[in-house]
Amino acid sequence: MPAPVLSRRDLDFLLYEWLDVESLTARGRFAEHSRETFDAVLDLSADMATKHFAPHNKKADAQEPRIGDDGRVEIIPEVKAALDLFAKAGLIGSSFDEELGGMQLPVTVLRAAMAWFQAANAGTSSYPFLTVGNANLIATHGSEEQIATYVPSLLEGRFFGTMCLSEPQAGSSLADITTKAVPQDDGSYRLTGTKMWISGGDHELSENIVHLVLAKIPGGPAGVKGISLFIVPKILVGADGQLGERNDVALVGLNHKMGNRGTTNTLLNFGDGTFTPAGRAGAVGYLLGEPHKGLSYMFHMMNEARIGVGFLATSLGYAGYLQSLEYARTRTQGRPLGDKDPSSPPVPLIEHADVRRMLLAQKAYVEGALALGLYCSQLVDEQQTAEDEDARARAGLLLDMLTPVAKSWPSQWCLEANSLAIQVHGGYGYTREFDVEQYYRDNRLNPIHEGTHGIQGLDLLGRKVVMQGGAGLALLGETIGRTVARGTQAGGDAARYAEQLQAAVTRVGATTARLWGTGDPELALANSSVYLEAVGHVVVAWMWLEQLLAAGTREGDFYDGKRAAARYFFAFELPKTGPQFDLLDSLDRTTLDVQPTWF
Amino acid sequence: MPAPVLSRRDLDFLLYEWLDVESLTARGRFAEHSRETFDAVLDLSADMATKHFAPHNKKADAQEPRIGDDGRVEIIPEVKAALDLFAKAGLIGSSFDEELGGMQLPVTVLRAAMAWFQAANAGTSSYPFLTVGNANLIATHGSEEQIATYVPSLLEGRFFGTMCLSEPQAGSSLADITTKAVPQDDGSYRLTGTKMWISGGDHELSENIVHLVLAKIPGGPAGVKGISLFIVPKILVGADGQLGERNDVALVGLNHKMGNRGTTNTLLNFGDGTFTPAGRAGAVGYLLGEPHKGLSYMFHMMNEARIGVGFLATSLGYAGYLQSLEYARTRTQGRPLGDKDPSSPPVPLIEHADVRRMLLAQKAYVEGALALGLYCSQLVDEQQTAEDEDARARAGLLLDMLTPVAKSWPSQWCLEANSLAIQVHGGYGYTREFDVEQYYRDNRLNPIHEGTHGIQGLDLLGRKVVMQGGAGLALLGETIGRTVARGTQAGGDAARYAEQLQAAVTRVGATTARLWGTGDPELALANSSVYLEAVGHVVVAWMWLEQLLAAGTREGDFYDGKRAAARYFFAFELPKTGPQFDLLDSLDRTTLDVQPTWF
Repeated sequence: MPAPVLSRRDLDFLLYEWLDVESLTARGRFAEHSRETFDAVLDLSADMATKHFAPHNKKADAQEPRIGDDGRVEIIPEVKAALDLFAKAGLIGSSFDEELGGMQLPVTVLRAAMAWFQAANAGTSSYPFLTVGNANLIATHGSEEQIATYVPSLLEGRFFGTMCLSEPQAGSSLADITTKAVPQDDGSYRLTGTKMWISGGDHELSENIVHLVLAKIPGGPAGVKGISLFIVPKILVGADGQLGERNDVALVGLNHKMGNRGTTNTLLNFGDGTFTPAGRAGAVGYLLGEPHKGLSYMFHMMNEARIGVGFLATSLGYAGYLQSLEYARTRTQGRPLGDKDPSSPPVPLIEHADVRRMLLAQKAYVEGALALGLYCSQLVDEQQTAEDEDARARAGLLLDMLTPVAKSWPSQWCLEANSLAIQVHGGYGYTREFDVEQYYRDNRLNPIHEGTHGIQGLDLLGRKVVMQGGAGLALLGETIGRTVARGTQAGGDAARYAEQLQAAVTRVGATTARLWGTGDPELALANSSVYLEAVGHVVVAWMWLEQLLAAGTREGDFYDGKRAAARYFFAFELPKTGPQFDLLDSLDRTTLDVQPTWF
Repeated sequence: MPAPVLSRRDLDFLLYEWLDVESLTARGRFAEHSRETFDAVLDLSADMATKHFAPHNKKADAQEPRIGDDGRVEIIPEVKAALDLFAKAGLIGSSFDEELGGMQLPVTVLRAAMAWFQAANAGTSSYPFLTVGNANLIATHGSEEQIATYVPSLLEGRFFGTMCLSEPQAGSSLADITTKAVPQDDGSYRLTGTKMWISGGDHELSENIVHLVLAKIPGGPAGVKGISLFIVPKILVGADGQLGERNDVALVGLNHKMGNRGTTNTLLNFGDGTFTPAGRAGAVGYLLGEPHKGLSYMFHMMNEARIGVGFLATSLGYAGYLQSLEYARTRTQGRPLGDKDPSSPPVPLIEHADVRRMLLAQKAYVEGALALGLYCSQLVDEQQTAEDEDARARAGLLLDMLTPVAKSWPSQWCLEANSLAIQVHGGYGYTREFDVEQYYRDNRLNPIHEGTHGIQGLDLLGRKVVMQGGAGLALLGETIGRTVARGTQAGGDAARYAEQLQAAVTRVGATTARLWGTGDPELALANSSVYLEAVGHVVVAWMWLEQLLAAGTREGDFYDGKRAAARYFFAFELPKTGPQFDLLDSLDRTTLDVQPTWF
C-alpha cells in the first residue's frame, strides 16, 4: 500500500484542536453544519482523492495532454472519470450559497478537504479549483442573468472555468496587455487578442469552458486602470441555457512544462477568425461588473488563488514527506555510528541522525505551511461571517497582510521539502519510479504562477506593510503578541520560543521602519525578496508556537512529534532570519549599484 | 544565436590571471606545453562543445536511451557522432602520460576544458569522463599487461569504462555489497552479483565496455575490508588485443531519471548465465592490484569523481546563469519603480533590482564554484608535480580537506542557481522550450551520486578535520590566513572582507573544537550536514576574496563584475553561516532526541 498523501490526524488536530472550526457552526451561514458534516466531507475527500485521483497522477504526467489530429485536446480518460465523480459529489460548489447549489461549507474545512486532492494529483485537481475561482468571481460581480447563466452550470461541473490574464508579452506586467474589447450595439463586446499560460484553456472534460478574460476597452485609461473583465464562453450559451454556436476562441498551442503536466496549459487566440461566422469579427464577450474595474475584481480572485497556490505547494510537500518517511522506516542502509561490526544487520534509514534532520525539516515545513494555510482560510471565514463588522474588517486586514506569505513561503519551503524527500530516497528518489521526483517538478511551478516570488515581495513590503498607515503590520504584531503572551505564560519551551519569536517580530517592525524611513522607495524595496523570506519565517515560527500551545501537555507520539518539529523550527530555521534582517537594516545597495554590463 | 554555455573570459581570468597555470610549464611533466597549447585545448573544447554537444542536449533528454527489440540499447546517433569527434581529438587521454597516448596536460587546464562539455551536455559528456576515471585506475593499479590491454583502447575511445560500486540493497553502505568473485586456477575470477546505478553500463557507443567492479572474494574479511576490485570487460579481450567472446554481463534494465537522461543508467547482472557458455559459471574478471584493497583504490578514483561532480554542477549552473542573463537583457517587462506612466516603454528585466539580485546570486555561486573547482584541480597538479615532497604532501592534504566541499557546495548552490535561472525566465523558464528547466533537472542528481550530501558531511567532520591530528584543518586555516593577510594589506573592501572571512575561519576552528571536545561522536556528528554547509560558504567566501585580489584595481566591466559578485557574497551569503555555527556550538540534540514513532 502506498503511503497516504496527507495526514488526517494532523488535519483533525489543526481544525478541531487548534482552530476550533466546530465553533463556526454557531454562525448563521454554517448553522446546518456540525462536526459530523465536516468529517463527512473530509472522509469523502480523502477516500476519493486516494482512490480516484492519486492512481493516475504518474500516468497523467507521463502522458501529458496533446492535440489530436482533429485539433482537439486529448487527455487520458482517468482525468474525466475522476472529475465527474468530484462534480457529482457536489464538491465544486461546497463553499457556495445553497441557493446557487452549494453546501455553504466553511472555507477552512473546504481547504482542508481540497488539500487531499491537491496532494493526490496536482494536475487533475486544478480543473475544479480554477472553476471555483471563476464561479466565485461571477457570483460576486455578475448580473443576475450572468449568475443564472453560468454559476449553476459551473458548480455542477457541466462548465469548467479559466482565468485569462497573461499575454505572451505581458506576464507580471498586466498594464501592458493588449487584448481589446470593442462594445457592440447589443451590449456585448467583441474581443481580439492572445492569452498565454491559460490552464484548462481547452479540453473536452466539460460541455463548455467559461473564460474570464482581462481586456481593454478602446478609449479607456492607459495601464492597469483601463483593464476590464469579460465572460467569454467557448460555446455561446442561449437565453434558454442551451449551448449555441462556437465562439471564436482558438487553441493555438499547448505549453510543455517541467511538471504540472496533467493540466492543459494553453496559448489561446481570441477573435482570430478561426471560429467566426461571416459578418462577425472577434470573440463574443460580456462585461463582468463595471468597465475598467477588471483588475480589482481579478485581484479578489487572485488573493484566493494565491492561498490556493500555497495549499498546492503545501500538499505536494506533504505527500513527499509522507513518502520519504515511509521509505526511511522501511529501507535499511548502513549502521549506527560506532557500530563497526559489518556482520550486524543494517538499520532503517530513519536511525541516522541526518535522515531524521531531513524528515524533521520536511515535517516543520509542511505542517507549518498547512497551519498557515488553514489559519488564512479561517480568516476568510471570519471576514465573511464574523459577528461584528470590526472583527470582519480586522480579519480582512490580517488576511491581506498574510496572503503574500501564504503564497510564497510554502512555494519555497515545501519545494525544499520535496528536494529533501528525494534526498532521503537517495538514487531511487531521482528516478521516475518513485513519486517524489514528480512532486519536486510539480512544485517548482508554485514560486512562479499567480505572482512570482519577486512580485510577492514587492506586494508585502511595497503595499501591504504600508497600507492604512501600517495598520496591517501593527495588527500582525498584536496578533502574534497575543500568542507570545500565551507562550510566556505556558513556560518551559513555549516561553523560550515566545521570547525568540517576540524578538523576531520586533525586528520585523524595526526593519520595516528603517527601510521606509529612508524615504527612498527604490532603496527600501531593493531587497524586498529577502524581506519576504524573513517575514515568512517569522510567521511560520508563530504557527509553530501556536501548534505547540495547542498540543499543550498532551501525551503521545503525535504531540511529541509536534513538539519536536517546533523545537526544530526554533533551533534550525528562525535563526536564519538574523542575517536577513541585518542585511536589510544595512540598507545594502549591491543590487542597485551593479550595472547590467558588469555581468 | 543561443547564449554561450560557459565564459572563456572568466576561464582566462581564473587560469592565467589568478592561478597562473602558465607557471606549470616550468615543470618537467608539462615542459612541452605553453600558453599556446593550453589555449588550443580550451579553444577546441569550446568549439566542439558548442557545435557538437550542445545542439543535441535537449533531444537526448526528450529521447532517452531505450532497450530495442533486439535487447540492445538505442541512443540517438548524435551522441556517438559527438563522442567519436571527442575521442579523435585525443581529449580522453589529455591528462595521461605521453607513453600511454596522452597529452600530459595539467589537470587544471583539462578540467577547464572539460567544463565546456559538461555545460553543453551533461549526458553525452559523462561517457568519456567515466572512461577517464576508469583508465586512471587501471593505469595506477594495474599490471603491465592489464595496462597494455585496456588503457590505450580506453584513451582512444575504442573501449568505454564504467564504475560498478552500488547494488540494489547497498548504496551509501558499500560494506554490504554481496557481489562475489571466486578465484580460478588460471588466476582469473568468476563474478556473480547485481550492480545498480551503473552509468554507461550498456550501449553500442564503443567496441567494448570495461567495467571496474567491487566484489568480495569468499573467505575475505567482512565489511569494507574484504572488498576487491576487478576488471570485467563486456567482451573478453585476447592476448593479441583482439575482441573475443561475450562475457556474462547482462543488462537487466535501464533506470529512468528526472534528468541526466542522456546517459544510460543501468541495472547489470554479472554471471547470471545470460551469456555464459556451457561449463563456465560467472562473469570473467581480473583482480586489479591486491585483494581486499578495492575500496581504497576506488576512493582514489572517487575523490577525482567528486571533484568532477562539483564541476558538473558548476557547469550546469553556469550555463543556466548565462541563459538567464541573456533573457534578462532582452526580455522587456514592467517599468522602474516610480515610473507610473503606462505609456512609457517597458524595460529589460535586468533593470529590476530583484532580477539583478537573482543574476548576482547565480554569478556568485557559479563563478565561486568554478574558482573552487579549478583551485582543487591545481592542488592535484601540485600533488603530482610540485618540486619538493613537502609541497606535494601539503597539496594532497589540502585537497583531501576540500574534496567534500568541492563536491557538495556546487551541488547545492549551482542547483539553486538553476532554480534562479528558471525564476528569471518566469513561466517560460518552467517550460521545456527553454534549456534552464533541463539544467535544473540534470543538476538535481549531483547532491546524490558519488556520495550524498549527508555522506560528504560525515566525511568532512568525521574524517577530514580530524585526520593527522587536525593537520588538514590547520592547513586550511593557514592557507586562508595568507589570503586574509593579503586582503588586509590591500585595504578597502578587500580588507573588510578579509576581516569578515577571518572571523568565519576562526569560528570554523572553534566550532570544530567544541564539537569534538564533547568526546561523543554521535553528538559531534549529529548536525554534520549543517557543518558541511557552513564550511562550504566560508571556503567559497575565500575563493571570492582571492578573485577580488586577483582583479586588483584593474578597470573594466569584467573586473567590476567580479567586485560586485564578491560584494554580494560577503553581504548576502557569508553571514548565513552565523546561525549555522551558533546551532553547532549549542550542541543541539534535536535530531538525536526525536524518535522514529514521533513522525
